[in-house]
Amino acid sequence: MSELAFTSATELAARIAARTPSPRDLVDAYLDRIDAHDAKLKGFLTVCREQAVAEAGMAEKEARAGRLRGPLHGVPIGLKDLFATAGVRTTAGSRILGEWVPDRDAAVVARLKAAGAIVLGKLHMHEFAYGPEGRNAHHGDPWNPWDPRVHRIAGGSSSGSAVAVAAGLCAAALGSDTGGSIRLPSALCNLVGLKPTFGRLSTDGVVPLAWSLDHVGPMTRTAADAALLFGVMAGTPAPVLSGDIRGLRIGLLRPFFLERATPSVARAVESAASQFEALGAQVDEAAIEGVEHAAAAFLAIVWPEALAYHQRWMRSRPQDYDPTVRDRLRLGAFVSAVDHLNGQRFRQLLRARTEALLARYDLLLAPATPITASPLDQDEVVLAGERRDRRGALILYTQVFNLTGHPAVSVPCGFDPDGMPIGMQLVGRADDEGTVLRAADAYQRATDWHLRRP
Amino acid sequence: MSELAFTSATELAARIAARTPSPRDLVDAYLDRIDAHDAKLKGFLTVCREQAVAEAGMAEKEARAGRLRGPLHGVPIGLKDLFATAGVRTTAGSRILGEWVPDRDAAVVARLKAAGAIVLGKLHMHEFAYGPEGRNAHHGDPWNPWDPRVHRIAGGSSSGSAVAVAAGLCAAALGSDTGGSIRLPSALCNLVGLKPTFGRLSTDGVVPLAWSLDHVGPMTRTAADAALLFGVMAGTPAPVLSGDIRGLRIGLLRPFFLERATPSVARAVESAASQFEALGAQVDEAAIEGVEHAAAAFLAIVWPEALAYHQRWMRSRPQDYDPTVRDRLRLGAFVSAVDHLNGQRFRQLLRARTEALLARYDLLLAPATPITASPLDQDEVVLAGERRDRRGALILYTQVFNLTGHPAVSVPCGFDPDGMPIGMQLVGRADDEGTVLRAADAYQRATDWHLRRP
Repeated sequence: MSELAFTSATELAARIAARTPSPRDLVDAYLDRIDAHDAKLKGFLTVCREQAVAEAGMAEKEARAGRLRGPLHGVPIGLKDLFATAGVRTTAGSRILGEWVPDRDAAVVARLKAAGAIVLGKLHMHEFAYGPEGRNAHHGDPWNPWDPRVHRIAGGSSSGSAVAVAAGLCAAALGSDTGGSIRLPSALCNLVGLKPTFGRLSTDGVVPLAWSLDHVGPMTRTAADAALLFGVMAGTPAPVLSGDIRGLRIGLLRPFFLERATPSVARAVESAASQFEALGAQVDEAAIEGVEHAAAAFLAIVWPEALAYHQRWMRSRPQDYDPTVRDRLRLGAFVSAVDHLNGQRFRQLLRARTEALLARYDLLLAPATPITASPLDQDEVVLAGERRDRRGALILYTQVFNLTGHPAVSVPCGFDPDGMPIGMQLVGRADDEGTVLRAADAYQRATDWHLRRP
Repeated sequence: MSELAFTSATELAARIAARTPSPRDLVDAYLDRIDAHDAKLKGFLTVCREQAVAEAGMAEKEARAGRLRGPLHGVPIGLKDLFATAGVRTTAGSRILGEWVPDRDAAVVARLKAAGAIVLGKLHMHEFAYGPEGRNAHHGDPWNPWDPRVHRIAGGSSSGSAVAVAAGLCAAALGSDTGGSIRLPSALCNLVGLKPTFGRLSTDGVVPLAWSLDHVGPMTRTAADAALLFGVMAGTPAPVLSGDIRGLRIGLLRPFFLERATPSVARAVESAASQFEALGAQVDEAAIEGVEHAAAAFLAIVWPEALAYHQRWMRSRPQDYDPTVRDRLRLGAFVSAVDHLNGQRFRQLLRARTEALLARYDLLLAPATPITASPLDQDEVVLAGERRDRRGALILYTQVFNLTGHPAVSVPCGFDPDGMPIGMQLVGRADDEGTVLRAADAYQRATDWHLRRP
């Protein structure tokens, strides 16, 4: 069954429709793998064992009768534990919501279930999607499956989602992305992570971090899987992935992006650019002017938005927060409205400049992260000669597109000398997830990085 | 010529098209009235004497040749002095911009000129649209034409626009409205003042006060004039004012609005409601839940937005501000980002509640202001038993619809025992200026408040 565990959701759905495996066998296989590996990996906060088995039983009967609920019939998935699930504890990785049992599903979860997906469990995450790697006071930190010996970060905040899919504990997962929390753990764990256009997928029933930056999206093995889940969640047909990207114009972001990445990351993304050219795309170098100010603007927005949401609990239950998260939430109180507005004004400028660039290019190409997965306790990094905290470094390239709202996907594109995965980021025009995924898929048809296993 | 000076812009345009008066005679007549009255009234900061005469000469030749530039051919108008005018000083009522001569017209000014309007001059205003009534350190305060003996406020910040139109010193004027600055001086001076839907008219080339609340619009004698100017500025046909409002559903806002107004204002608006019923509309009482928090949300937004814009000059030239404006700008520094965001979140709620109300009603009806024009030095008022500063009281009912962005018009509907004008406010659905103006026009066809002269 280990072969099935690493099969794409698209392929699994097709096999289930063809009767082998049965949904029940598949769920059992994943549950066995969870039992075998998750104590170490910590991908799951809650395993929905009974419900998943019961659902699989129903799905099996339906499949035998030739009744498929939808394109995900019988496919077992995991959900970052901030997606509300009716009758199942939804903690957002926190003690504050430790006992919360929602009475209905988040909107996108309801759509996935209606399409036949089976929820295997709720996945580990940074507390309220806000804590840094390596400091989780409540549940410890997930273990990146790509290094069985050293405890390395999986990246976050959708850490459990990345670990569960990468380790073959579920077929696909949902994550949320406020500064990079879908794309960066996907990059660090060799997955495809899609942050769609801002507002394209409903965040109804998703515990917010910062409402003007929050996105939800799929974390999968392949771009085709991402397209499948995205279509179901958007309520539209899945984007058509033709495999043909001839004539596509790609802007390779060198200043700030490639320029500051570690050498192995930069080399992998340069190679990917060559691969795109080999596939018939035209790649030119491009730059987003002033993008080095994005990090400051991001903080001026995310800090107060996060505190505005958490204010009630920061007053009533401060002791129940992870201390690192509590300290970070407190920072929100020191941002003035004028600084916040200046952040928002810069954001408008950044969006306009990115739009202008995307008038010339169909896609922008950059690394997803400047670094790869480092050991848990190594929370400083050196980028282009500057010491930085790891969390700030990890979201350096992704947060830019939370600010602008453009769709962006992280795609596996190589490994560093330690064998840690490298991800590239493809960014497209607003509401054009189709082109983003088509390019990612064409790349995956031509390469095999995503087929490697930890 | 005094008859012409109080004729509506619509009527003047028709007479000019019919050759009498000539544009030149009309401009001369207005200039004579400005010379005779404006030293006391202070409607104008800059009179564009030579340009207006030259333009009128050209318009006259064109009219004689049967070539009309557009529906405002030869109609003399005034502009609040924050609309950029090519080659003409644009001060925003300030010393900071005292010497600014823009090299191009604001977008809406360009459209009015292209439609044939002649700019007679730039009109008095509160410094940067931000000072209170009765404290203008640079230029003194305009005199409300409705009391020739006592110096009463005209209302602001578009004070000069209201005075100039009310006193027959121009045919129509432009104002801007961040918390009520078009509607409230219109109400206090017996004019029609239209704040269109947020974003409907371009603010390009208009000195901002608070970008998320700023609107521009016409201040005129009649709703028909407002429709004429609005159509030209929007670049669309003017709304059709049929005079027929049978079956229109109007929600009369009693809690917070009628309830807190002075008795004479409340009575006048109640009478207007009866008049609407007599015209075939259906009037029911309505309420916007939580509207009493609008003032706090407004301040949490306008204070920091204003400071964010003025920060550069507050650092480099603080001494050049009117002290009252400078103090008020400084308040912006004390608003935290979290308070600002809470204001913005309340604003969303307020907008949603107003939308819900406008699903049941075609229009909402309320007083434009709770009080009428008071003597300049009387800067406290008592509303429903509470002492309040006059500025806060004046914008109490108007600022609500800057927050929600719905189109709102102030329409003359009576006089208080001192002979001071009273205005009512009609609020419509987003982008439905047509219904707002149709109701205002139907009311004006049935009443003669707007025909009285100071």
